[in-house]
This record gives sequence, structure tokens and C-alpha cells, in this order.
Amino acid sequence: MESVLDYLTMKKKIRAGLAGANGYVGTELLSLLSMHPNVEISEISGASSAGRKIGNKIVKNEIDPAQCDAIFACLPHGEAGKIVPNWLKAGKVVFDLSADFRLKNHKNYDDWYHAKHPAPGLLKKAVYGMPETNSEKIKRADLIACPGCYTTATILGMLPAVKKGLVKSNIFVSAVSGTSGAGKKTDLSYLFCEVNENLSAYSPLVHRHTPEMEQELSIAGGKKVSVSFVPHLGPFNRGIYATITADLTDKKITQDAVNKAYLKEFSHDEFTVVRDEIPHLKDVRGTNYCHIYPLVDARGGRLVVISVVDNLVKGAAGQAVECFNLRFGLNKRAGLNLKLGWI
Amino acid sequence: MESVLDYLTMKKKIRAGLAGANGYVGTELLSLLSMHPNVEISEISGASSAGRKIGNKIVKNEIDPAQCDAIFACLPHGEAGKIVPNWLKAGKVVFDLSADFRLKNHKNYDDWYHAKHPAPGLLKKAVYGMPETNSEKIKRADLIACPGCYTTATILGMLPAVKKGLVKSNIFVSAVSGTSGAGKKTDLSYLFCEVNENLSAYSPLVHRHTPEMEQELSIAGGKKVSVSFVPHLGPFNRGIYATITADLTDKKITQDAVNKAYLKEFSHDEFTVVRDEIPHLKDVRGTNYCHIYPLVDARGGRLVVISVVDNLVKGAAGQAVECFNLRFGLNKRAGLNLKLGWI
Amino acid sequence: MESVLDYLTMKKKIRAGLAGANGYVGTELLSLLSMHPNVEISEISGASSAGRKIGNKIVKNEIDPAQCDAIFACLPHGEAGKIVPNWLKAGKVVFDLSADFRLKNHKNYDDWYHAKHPAPGLLKKAVYGMPETNSEKIKRADLIACPGCYTTATILGMLPAVKKGLVKSNIFVSAVSGTSGAGKKTDLSYLFCEVNENLSAYSPLVHRHTPEMEQELSIAGGKKVSVSFVPHLGPFNRGIYATITADLTDKKITQDAVNKAYLKEFSHDEFTVVRDEIPHLKDVRGTNYCHIYPLVDARGGRLVVISVVDNLVKGAAGQAVECFNLRFGLNKRAGLNLKLGWI
Amino acid sequence: MESVLDYLTMKKKIRAGLAGANGYVGTELLSLLSMHPNVEISEISGASSAGRKIGNKIVKNEIDPAQCDAIFACLPHGEAGKIVPNWLKAGKVVFDLSADFRLKNHKNYDDWYHAKHPAPGLLKKAVYGMPETNSEKIKRADLIACPGCYTTATILGMLPAVKKGLVKSNIFVSAVSGTSGAGKKTDLSYLFCEVNENLSAYSPLVHRHTPEMEQELSIAGGKKVSVSFVPHLGPFNRGIYATITADLTDKKITQDAVNKAYLKEFSHDEFTVVRDEIPHLKDVRGTNYCHIYPLVDARGGRLVVISVVDNLVKGAAGQAVECFNLRFGLNKRAGLNLKLGWI
Repeated sequence: MESVLDYLTMKKKIRAGLAGANGYVGTELLSLLSMHPNVEISEISGASSAGRKIGNKIVKNEIDPAQCDAIFACLPHGEAGKIVPNWLKAGKVVFDLSADFRLKNHKNYDDWYHAKHPAPGLLKKAVYGMPETNSEKIKRADLIACPGCYTTATILGMLPAVKKGLVKSNIFVSAVSGTSGAGKKTDLSYLFCEVNENLSAYSPLVHRHTPEMEQELSIAGGKKVSVSFVPHLGPFNRGIYATITADLTDKKITQDAVNKAYLKEFSHDEFTVVRDEIPHLKDVRGTNYCHIYPLVDARGGRLVVISVVDNLVKGAAGQAVECFNLRFGLNKRAGLNLKLGWI
Repeated sequence: MESVLDYLTMKKKIRAGLAGANGYVGTELLSLLSMHPNVEISEISGASSAGRKIGNKIVKNEIDPAQCDAIFACLPHGEAGKIVPNWLKAGKVVFDLSADFRLKNHKNYDDWYHAKHPAPGLLKKAVYGMPETNSEKIKRADLIACPGCYTTATILGMLPAVKKGLVKSNIFVSAVSGTSGAGKKTDLSYLFCEVNENLSAYSPLVHRHTPEMEQELSIAGGKKVSVSFVPHLGPFNRGIYATITADLTDKKITQDAVNKAYLKEFSHDEFTVVRDEIPHLKDVRGTNYCHIYPLVDARGGRLVVISVVDNLVKGAAGQAVECFNLRFGLNKRAGLNLKLGWI
Repeated sequence: MESVLDYLTMKKKIRAGLAGANGYVGTELLSLLSMHPNVEISEISGASSAGRKIGNKIVKNEIDPAQCDAIFACLPHGEAGKIVPNWLKAGKVVFDLSADFRLKNHKNYDDWYHAKHPAPGLLKKAVYGMPETNSEKIKRADLIACPGCYTTATILGMLPAVKKGLVKSNIFVSAVSGTSGAGKKTDLSYLFCEVNENLSAYSPLVHRHTPEMEQELSIAGGKKVSVSFVPHLGPFNRGIYATITADLTDKKITQDAVNKAYLKEFSHDEFTVVRDEIPHLKDVRGTNYCHIYPLVDARGGRLVVISVVDNLVKGAAGQAVECFNLRFGLNKRAGLNLKLGWI
Repeated sequence: MESVLDYLTMKKKIRAGLAGANGYVGTELLSLLSMHPNVEISEISGASSAGRKIGNKIVKNEIDPAQCDAIFACLPHGEAGKIVPNWLKAGKVVFDLSADFRLKNHKNYDDWYHAKHPAPGLLKKAVYGMPETNSEKIKRADLIACPGCYTTATILGMLPAVKKGLVKSNIFVSAVSGTSGAGKKTDLSYLFCEVNENLSAYSPLVHRHTPEMEQELSIAGGKKVSVSFVPHLGPFNRGIYATITADLTDKKITQDAVNKAYLKEFSHDEFTVVRDEIPHLKDVRGTNYCHIYPLVDARGGRLVVISVVDNLVKGAAGQAVECFNLRFGLNKRAGLNLKLGWI
């Protein structure tokens, strides 16, 4: 691999491979990378579109790591874990958007994904790709496990409260996801007429993003945090709207104290914004921002936090690009200056 | 007023007046009443449509109580309270769909509605119009205060748990409402392009349905219940999807025990159904049903309950018709055999 | 088969079988028939739900005609044609909602459906199930071929103009259908995220409803009518919005003359309404109505007609019930008094 | 005013004023200009948001032309015409997105807008801002009248056919617009619950974009072209889907000949693309592209053309930026390299 300096001095662009370009996350990442000033997309794979042309590239069944400096994997969980070891052996930097390398304890993976982990030996090497909590490690990692969408909203939403001990360690999350979160798959449940004018919870208390939330918040808080998570499918394309609550550790904790903790925590972060107005999903649509609104419930002795992201950007492809920028020493906003104000 | 027997023997139909036919609830009620086998709509009022014809009736500015046996009021809160006393004096049975007579303590009204109650003397006389909790009183009442939409979903969802002491008295509700819940008003916030592809919380912890929930659940449980309520506006026309949680009083309470309590509580109720699958909003769309799914969270020591209604039917117009059927001794399902399976 | 008189005197209900209850049309028909005052649903079949219970009926793989007086078939084209002959031999009245018996000339079927007609010998026997044009024949038919959804809107929209010779015989139709028109099938094209915030034409000039439109309008006009038809898929569940145009035969034809022709044509029809305001799709949603708005374009020398139906009701299941009511001598509105004013 | 050379050598950015930043078009233009590499937004006005801060700018009631090199006006028709003369007198380049300077004959304006034109003397000076037809004039103009959204789709869709004499001069357009096309105004008609699950034609044959279409196509074709235009409001935020037809001048004209004419016409245009597959609205969402699909209807003797744009980008703000780039000698794509592949 070339030295980071080469890229920074712009002698050459970074060659990025994209494995799994067919799905909604893969397509989003392809769009982002194709506009990234420091990236040349060198390889694209996608099972169902192999042989088709995207730009001047032929989509392959598998990417050739020799043609890449960095590889982004948008593959189903289980599949990523099988192929990533080869890429690492070839000396490439891997950004894996599947769930395969997010959990540090492979037993957690086995339990929640009901499958044997495909490469447990690599879990130690993997760094959780959340710039707000892990930027220094990401800069030096070769295997970056990019977080899930619900997870990003939940962890960022509760991070300051958990770190500062403002809340008890039993968190309840009710979140609504746009239907792109279900992926591009032919299932009757995701037909237009089934989702439109509908709303439904699914996998309540057993959704696979739960152990990620618990792992990262436990690390942040320095004690075991448990999360009761109820996800919902909503009739819109993009976005996660998470409404989170936990009991205050002390009922006298004020709104002002909470605001200060939140503002301080994210003061150096480019894309995580503490709001003083209730965020709307459309405030972050099409962007890499996470908007957070913490609210003290004095009557109920709780903290309520609203946290919103675009599931395909900050919740997936955008956050992967953020990690990529960190890892290759690029401008934090490179490729992520996305248009605001989408309706 | 004629005797109930007259109506039952079908010598004549019940003359119903509808005050406030312009809004979404008013229109829904008009549709339901127009198809009700025992009803003749005798008077219609509606400020913005006065003078127009609906069927063979001219819409008036105010209805004439002399032409009515029962009067349904779909007026803004504050306005209903001013005119209802006249109708009661004229000896009519009043079904008020506003918030004016729902709270027993007028101070609660003053606090949450930021206004002086227009007729505090009538609060004692008013009966809360929820057939599942109040059917005997509704049969004898002349002023029936029909519940709010979020309230219906929440109270029904937690009623068995609170009555049986299964949960602690501090309840958290995250609910999403279809946009018809905001009423038919010209506000930029409710324009199509503002709501579509969006989701947003509003009035978190201060929504006016909160004291209704607390009042009725406190009565049911025989102790003070507090509710932390976070409503959201969603991009669909109809429906309330409430995701509710409270800590279990005993972590050993089983799913089986909960199911039994729920099934027993609603065993005699026509429209409230305990489900063993997660309800979808569309399961109740266009119907007077409330579907409830209670789920024990053993890891988190909580009960999670999903409760869904159509905000315009069971959450407003349909429940008013249910009360009307009770009050006039009609078949419980009269006018409420609505088509299922809407997409 | 029992005599019609038996049913009319209500000695017994008509036993209806429903073949193909899984799809959107099948489900809609099931809902309508289950509320029909003169119907007992005696048999239900549905490949993908065989063995499941609907109400007190077990869904079968095939219905038993011996248990039915009338059979409604909501099967794919090609399949209906194979099984209908058996039902007719068993002496049953068949309402076929597929395309198999709509075209009088089997060559038309072969050409537009790219398949050999499964039962060309029955085409003579089949009656096109449009009450506005064919009520007398429907009353005596045993095989009623219920029209397609686009077809219903288009034929009704142009019927008076074609019959009275107000327009030339080359018609252009641009129509938008709700996505339920595509059926309940697992195809990436109909996923929520593909349809939402999208609109697209499909099968322009080659859609299979074209020969039906041409056949019926040619019969009505007494000369060959050709139709250029461009259908579109729109981001809503239900409805057909057809915008139709043809050149006036005489540029001096007035709006007044057109209105008179339209009003006269449909003066005895229960469900087809000539409007003097532009119809909205929601005016007919969930109902069996067709709303038509004819507009003379004096500058362009054209007639423009807007014609709207609910594709699942008047465009499919409701119109089948209308035919059933005609055939069994029932009230025209039996089972079709559907709630108006849906949002 | 500085010379164009100054900007090109990047000694300084072009100072752009934006009058009318509140509406959907104004907001879109603000987003585009804020990311434009050669633009500094120097002034912002907006009646309903005056006093608020956008970025580091205070929104004013009126912009100060002295602070601007170029001024973009997103004002209601009638209002733009009153203020534009002052800006021109101050020597500024004006991009007017209202209808005020689009029609060359003020009588057309008076007739279709039912108002006296506010500045008829300037009509001669104004250049119609469509880069595909007018790029040389735009480069030298000081008053550029940016086209309407329906107009853009229609003119581009029929331009090659009309120029080459492939079709007769009587055109029929049925087009569906996203609801942002109605603007950000508090009207019951545009409430979410009124638009969602609905579709409706409006202003058929009398929509104000008609004379623009006729004017520009008549110029292109060298003879009077008439347009019968039926616009529809659809349940989506963005986009125009225009389905256009006209009789072929010669029934022997082939698809191949049409394709050649279309490809040749737009071969040098950056943003107008002739497709060989039916365009979907989402293909152009969020982009400045116009996609066109011409289809010969041999049976009907017609040409059918599908033409789609994003109404806020190519149909308004993006096309204004395109004109701005032309006028100031910038790269054609500056500020218009928008992310593709939006869902």
C-alpha cells in the first residue's frame, strides 16, 4: 500500500473497491464514492448485476483486491466474514458495512445472528467504526466494522448521558426506520401496498442491533448497559427516528446540566449536532448528520432523547466514508458535503 | 325525549345532530351516522361550510337541538363547553368529541389547556365515553365525553396491567399518529411536502392527552399513575401506533400470566382484541377495533405493549357511535360493521 | 341451481365460492362478499394460503363447485380459462375477474397475451360484465367476464362520446394506477422504496387492456375505434385516474351538448356519475363509483375526459358484485353501500 | 460590474443575491448556490423569514443590489416585475424565476395571468432561460427569464419533433407534478391528508404554463403550435412526469428516424438525455437532468413522448444556475454535480 502522504499530496487518488453494489446501501455508497474528490472507484462487484456497466466499470462477481487500496463491503452478514480475511491478507484496508465484525465477543454474534461466526479470529483486530467514539483507533485500523443504522442513532443519542452517569443502565428505545432499512429484497412485506399507510413494530426486544448498542454503551459508561429495543417499519424511504428513554440517576439533574454534557461531548464532532429544537427526520435526510435532542422529564424522573439519522448515510454509507477519510488522513468532510434542505 | 323502547321497536329512527362537520373527525362521523341503520341525521352545522348541502340537509351555523334526540359535537375544545349546556338544558343526549368534559378536575384542564374551563359545573355530570371501562355509566349518561385518540390506544393498552398491578405506576408512551390527527387546518406544518418522507416528535411530555391517560389509568389501578408521553406525527393519513412500556412490579411475571390478564379483561368487549402477533396499523385501518399486543421483556424487567387504533374511528367517531349505541340500547355493532382488510 | 325467486324471498342465501383469495382483488372481493346481505361464502381457494382459516372456512387448493351457486374467479389469466369450463358444466354461474373471457376474438387474446387461449369455444357464451352497457345480457349469462380496471375507467369515460359520434375514432389515454393494480407479487419493481416518490409509465401502447377498450368502444360506436394507451404506476395504493382525449368530429360541438349526452347516457346507472367539477381520486376511493368529467377543448378541437374509479372496487371486485346482483335479481346496491369520504 | 475574466481567474467569487428564499424553489436555490464553487451568497431576502439568520447572513425584507453581481428572484409573478427594473438599472444580471418575463407578448400575460403586466417595456430585453434553445443569447443577457417546470419538460420533450416537422402542430400534454410545484402555501388543498392517496387534475386547458409552451415551440418550429395541457397534482414531493402526444405528419415516420432526430438535437446538451428505456421520475430526482423517451405509435399514427424533470432543479433552481453558469462563463456543471441515485 502507498503511504498516506501520496494521497494527501494528490499525486494519486485512492483506489476503492466496492463489494455488493446492488442493495440500497451499496448504491448509496457508490454515489458517495463516485463524487468523492480523493477516490477512484477501481472495482465493483454485485451478484445480481454482474456483467452490467456502471460508469466505465464492468460489475464483477468478485472484486480483485490487487486493484484496490481500500475495500468497502456491503455484503450480507455471514458473507462478508468469509471474504474479508483474504482482503486483509492482501494488505488492504477494509470497511465492512455488514454486522460481521461489530461484536467483540463471537458468542454474542452466535446468539443474536443464530449462526457460527465465520472468522472469530479477526474480531480482535476489528475497530468499531464510529468516529465520535473511536477516531484514533480508526486512523490506525485495517478492518473497520461500520455500525448499524439504529445503533448509530441510539449510541450517539445516549453517549453523553451514559458516559457522565446521568442515567441508569436500563435503556428503552422505540425507533422508526424508513423502508430502505429493510434492504432491496423481494418479500411481500416490503411491497408498496403493504408498507404505505401502515406502521408496524418488528423483532421487538430481539432485533440484532441490540447487542451492538449494549456493547458500545457499556464500553462508554464503564459498566454493563442493557437496551430494550423496539424497532418499527415506517412508510418513508430513508431515516431513523429514535425516541429513547432511561431513568435519571438523580431526579435533580437539570435540563441545563444535560445540555452542557451533550454539547461538550460532541463539541469536536463534525456531524453530530445537539439541537435545541425537536429534530425532524427531514433535517438530516440525505446528509451525514446525526441530530440529537435531550429532554429532561422531571415529572417522570427520566431522560428522553430524540436522535435522528439518515439510515443510508450516517447510518451506513456516509459513516463508512467518514471512517475512510479518517483512515486515509483526508478532510473530514471530503465527499460528505451533501446538499441540505431536501424535501 | 322519546323512550328508548320506541327506537328499539323501530317505530322511528333516532334523530342525530352533528355540530362541526367540516373537520376530519366530523366528516368521519357524518359518514358513519349516514350509514347507521337506526339514525336519521336531522341537523348539521359547520362554520366553514354553512349554506352548503350535504345529502338533503343544508349545513347550518348552529344546530337546532329541538330537531335532535342526540347531538354529536366535533367542535374545538373551549367551543364545545360553551354550547353543550344549552343542549343539556333542552334535554338532549350529548356526545362531545372535544376535550372539554374529559377531565374530572377543572384545574387539570386549566393547566394543560392553558385556558379557564368554560363550564366546570358540568364536569361532575360528564361520563368518560370508553365502553371498555364505563359501559354502565354511559348507558345512563346525558353528557358523554368521548376520549382522545392517543388516549384510547394508551388506556386500553395498559388497562389490564394497571388493574392487576403487573406494572409500576410510571408509564412511558411513544406513539405515532397519522396526520389526520392534526385536524384539517391550514398550517405550513401539515402541508404534504412537510409531512411526506418525514417524521417528528411534537409536544413531548406536554401533550394534552396526558392528563386523560393519567386520570383514567389512576382510576383503573386505584393509585396515582403517571405517564410520560411522546407523540409523533407520521406520513400516513390514519391511525395511532402506540408503543408503551412500564417496569414490571415483579420480574418473575410471565408472558403467560400477562396474556391471561389481558384476555380476561377484554373478553366481553366487542372491539378490543388481544393479539398473539404484532399488530400492523393497517389491521385496524377504517375499523372500530383496538388491537393490543403485550410482551414481557424479561431481560429488561419491563412490560412492552403495542396498541393500535384508527384515530378517526375507535379514536374518535367510531367510539362515539359505540357510546351512542350503548346509550340508546342498540346493537353494539350497529353502524360499526365496517369493511376490514383495507389497503 | 335454485330459482332466483328462492333467493329473493330470502329463503336462503346465495352460496358463493371464491377462487383465488390471496391477491389484492381476491381480498377485496372476500371483504365485499362477507358483508353482502344475500351471500354466504361457501368455498374459498388460494394457492399460497391453502390450509389457513378465514372466518370459519378453511382455504382450499381448489373450490368444490357443488358447494356453490355462484363462483367468483380471481385467478391469473390462463389459469381461469382452464378451470371455468368445469364449473360451467356443473351448472354454476361464473364471474371471472381474469382477462380470459373478455375478448370475443381469441386471436386478439393470442396476440396481446402472447399465449394460446385456453378455452376459445367458450368466448361466444361469455358476456362482458359491464352493467352500464350490458345489463340485460348479464341478467341471463352464466359466464360473466368482468372488465379490467383501466378498461372500466376508459370505456365509461368515452362511452357517450363514442356512441353519439362526438369524437373521432382514434383515442389517446394517459392513466395512472395505484400500485395494488400490479397485484401482490414479489417483484423488485413494486417494493415500497421503488414506487414511493416515483412515477413511471409502463407498457406504453402495448398494455393488455387496450384490445378490451377497443372492442367495447367499437361495439358501442358501431365502428372501429382505436386506442393509444399509456398506463403509469403511481405512489398510492388504490385508484385509476384516466385522462382521455380524442378529436371532436365537429369543432362546433359545445360543452353543453357534451354534458347533455353524458348525463343522458348514465341517467339510469347506479354507480356512474357525471360530475361538473374535476374529480379527485379520493372521491371514489373505497367505493363502487365511477366519476366522469368531460371537457370540451375548443382551442384544440378536442374532447378531454377525466374518468376515475377505485381499481379494486369498480375496477374489479365491486363491479363483479354489481354483475352478481344483476344476475341474481338482487338490489343493485346490495353489498355495495360502501362508506364514502375516505381519507 | 466586474469583468467575467475576474471570476474565471478566481480572483473573486461572484456575489449572488437571492430574493424570496422562503418557498420551495427559493430554498432549493439557496442550497444549490451555497454549494456552488464560484458563488458567494451576498444577500438574502424573504418576507416571512426576515430577521432570521441563514448561515452568516441575516434575511432582509429586500436585497441591496449594490452588494450583488447577480440577483436571483424567486418571487410571485407580478412582484418580480415590479422590482426587477431597479436591479437592471443598477447594472446587475437578473435571473427571474417568476413568470413575469417569460412571455414576449404582454397581451398573452394579461390574458393568462388575469393581470396587467408590471413592466411590459422590459419584455424585449428578456431572454428565455432555456440553455438547450437559447444558450448564445443567455450568455449576453442581463435579464434571463427562467422557464416554468411543466414548460421545461414539455418543450424539451417536443423540441426535436417540432423542429424537424415530425408532428402536427396540435399537441396534447398530460403531466403529473409533485406537490412542491404548488409552492409552500397554506391552502387546505395541499394538506398532507388531502394529497396523500389522491391524484387530481387541475386547471385543465387553462394552466398558465400553456402560453410559454406554445411560444417557445412555435419559435422552434417556425409555425404556430398549439398545446392542450392537462396538469395533475400527485402524491409525491418532487418531479414532473409529462406524457405528451401529437399526430405524426407522416404515418411512415419510423422510430429510428425519431431517435436520430432526438439524439442529434441534444447531442451537445449537458443535462438533456434521450433514453432508450422508459424514464422513471426517480431517475432525475434531485438532479438537473431532463430524461426524454420518444415512442412512435404506428397503429395510432402518433408520436408519444415521455419527458421528466425534477421540478425544483431542472424545472426551476437548477436551470437558473445553468443559465448563471453560461452567463458568467463558468463550467456548465458548476454547482450542478448533484448526487444521483436518490431514493
